[in-house]
Amino acid sequence: MGKALIIGCGGVASAAIHKCCQNSEVFTEICIASRTKAKCDALKEKLEGTTSTKITTAQVDADHVDELTALIKKEKPDVVLNLALPYQDLTIMDACLAAKTHYIDTANYEPEDTAKFEYKWQWAYREKFEKAGITALLGSGFDPGVTGVFSAYAQKHYFDEIHYIDILDCNAGDHGYPFATNFNPEINIREVSARGSYWENGSWVETEPMEIKKVYDFPEIGEKDMYLLHHEELESLALNIKGIKRIRFFMTFGQSYLTHLKCLENVGMTSIEPIEFEGKQIVPLQFLKAVLPDPSSLGPRTKGKTNIGCIFRGIKDGKERNLYIYNVCDHQECYREVGSQAVAYTTGVPAMIGAMMVMTGKWLKPGVFNVEEFDPDPFMEALNRWGLPWKTEEQPELVD
Amino acid sequence: MGKALIIGCGGVASAAIHKCCQNSEVFTEICIASRTKAKCDALKEKLEGTTSTKITTAQVDADHVDELTALIKKEKPDVVLNLALPYQDLTIMDACLAAKTHYIDTANYEPEDTAKFEYKWQWAYREKFEKAGITALLGSGFDPGVTGVFSAYAQKHYFDEIHYIDILDCNAGDHGYPFATNFNPEINIREVSARGSYWENGSWVETEPMEIKKVYDFPEIGEKDMYLLHHEELESLALNIKGIKRIRFFMTFGQSYLTHLKCLENVGMTSIEPIEFEGKQIVPLQFLKAVLPDPSSLGPRTKGKTNIGCIFRGIKDGKERNLYIYNVCDHQECYREVGSQAVAYTTGVPAMIGAMMVMTGKWLKPGVFNVEEFDPDPFMEALNRWGLPWKTEEQPELVD
Repeated sequence: MGKALIIGCGGVASAAIHKCCQNSEVFTEICIASRTKAKCDALKEKLEGTTSTKITTAQVDADHVDELTALIKKEKPDVVLNLALPYQDLTIMDACLAAKTHYIDTANYEPEDTAKFEYKWQWAYREKFEKAGITALLGSGFDPGVTGVFSAYAQKHYFDEIHYIDILDCNAGDHGYPFATNFNPEINIREVSARGSYWENGSWVETEPMEIKKVYDFPEIGEKDMYLLHHEELESLALNIKGIKRIRFFMTFGQSYLTHLKCLENVGMTSIEPIEFEGKQIVPLQFLKAVLPDPSSLGPRTKGKTNIGCIFRGIKDGKERNLYIYNVCDHQECYREVGSQAVAYTTGVPAMIGAMMVMTGKWLKPGVFNVEEFDPDPFMEALNRWGLPWKTEEQPELVD
Repeated sequence: MGKALIIGCGGVASAAIHKCCQNSEVFTEICIASRTKAKCDALKEKLEGTTSTKITTAQVDADHVDELTALIKKEKPDVVLNLALPYQDLTIMDACLAAKTHYIDTANYEPEDTAKFEYKWQWAYREKFEKAGITALLGSGFDPGVTGVFSAYAQKHYFDEIHYIDILDCNAGDHGYPFATNFNPEINIREVSARGSYWENGSWVETEPMEIKKVYDFPEIGEKDMYLLHHEELESLALNIKGIKRIRFFMTFGQSYLTHLKCLENVGMTSIEPIEFEGKQIVPLQFLKAVLPDPSSLGPRTKGKTNIGCIFRGIKDGKERNLYIYNVCDHQECYREVGSQAVAYTTGVPAMIGAMMVMTGKWLKPGVFNVEEFDPDPFMEALNRWGLPWKTEEQPELVD
């Protein structure tokens, strides 16, 4: 079928690349490019012999449009799948425009110095992509990503009008450590210390950090505490689901995780202000990172499941209807299959599928789009086939 | 009256020295000696002009018997008051023997490499002190110290036989930080992670660390969680209170303090194993100490009270009797008076009184003794006079 240029070689990229290599009919060729070419080469070496996908690698600094453009022009991929850092979305979009190549990513652009999850920077590219005749597919991970596809699917098949959406992200994985972070603890801390917000009756309602706590009994997992956070898909779904009255996003955090984070914050161990120690300036958070287990060591030891999905409330044929669509993923099964646990797997698989939607022409129109703006059916079918089977449940327990 | 040589110049020593200077009739002269003479000089400068006690200072390394002996022979004090580190008790006792000078301390000797609170090393000096015709008074702080005097006083005036003693040490001070330690966090951690023990029916009963938790409603403070710990006076009281069936020691710890300590332990921040950080070997606990508030900064900001005392159960005139003797101390009042909060004050005042008991000849007999082996009455009177007034309560709430 075609060729994808994949930028990035971290955990999510690794999961996506494994899945591309399982899907050689579509991905006959991939080029893996990142700042550290050796990481790409190691992954190539691991996969070669297990796949008929042809794999090449390249070095690229995704902060530089010129370098990126030259690489795209040289490799001539059908699509560019951006799995680098969110800070690099705009440079990669600029390069795709310069090289007239379709673009797919999983997380929206954020300036490096703020913690603002907003689509405004990327939506500003709409006209440019339209004029260039190329497609930019934004946020094709799980959340955002699959949550938007679930919404479009519910809208298409189950509802005349959706009034309420609750997005529920539950990670019930247990790595056996009293405390460890899946990735940079700074990002974890920013997440739980940021103000929350949700969309209601046409405007944003802000909450204190972690102010709204609910308990939900997740299918295949059980009861977990979850907290209302802001999340980027709230912004696009509020626009794209007509008639919507309220959208909220909840993520589970265990009490022990939050207690450890709070204690570390209280004593100053999460501070990014350097302190003087034995004649050296040391940033406490950097030292904390060095003491904590290496996030990459968690994969093989994480047990348990994730459950991410959406609960919809709305009207069908004049009657109220409630529907839950969700996927359950097992950390250890993911690790056995692609060498990453479920957090990377659930983002990497939809990234591969998004690239496939564009390459196969199923999701192709000039401009910049979020996933819910396309026909959800082929994506939903692909989720079942490529490792993220979903379930629907009528009349689920609602979040109060 | 006479002259005391005070070894040590930390928080407890400072409180004791302030009290000696209030008591110039007994302490006509004091010499303050420590490793860092500048600290002694600073304290001398602060006190001179406020007292008729003559103050001199000296430099001494309390690890060296020869240095200590030379200092005692030069200064010719009536007593040596040891407020240095517990590791240094034996060198100072050896020097007192060599110089034939009475000895008083507040905490029993412990070898630097263990956490064993045992009197055996110091009790082994009994015969030497007896032969030299000098007195060694051990453990004249609050606990041990006043708790032993309370026991002797209860025995003398209130009971024919004491069967049960519960020693209750409550510090309800609040320094306003989410977490800070009064002194070296390593010692705090050792305290809560050590196995507990109590004396019952002639032998020691060991418990898991923090296994036994009780709630007690402390006079002038209210309900606090307290935990059974081993404590050194259990050992001497078990010998010296005839007919005793059980002695226990409880100390209060707030849930938040314990949670912070546990979280820090869980993530490895209390470890004494160095880790590699930016090319340097750094001990996590050392780094943690550097991040936490400096213990010496807590004094001026600590509010609230301490309540330390003993609950006795026994027989008087054939009937069961229960009695509580305790002292309540206010952190801010202590700080205003002597520049130290109540934890240092409650140890420093009994140290001064112990020295006074020996200097005035009220507690003087050749050998090595614990406080409860002397007549408690003059000590109890001195407590009321010198800032640690005590109360008795008949039929107190018992610890279940």
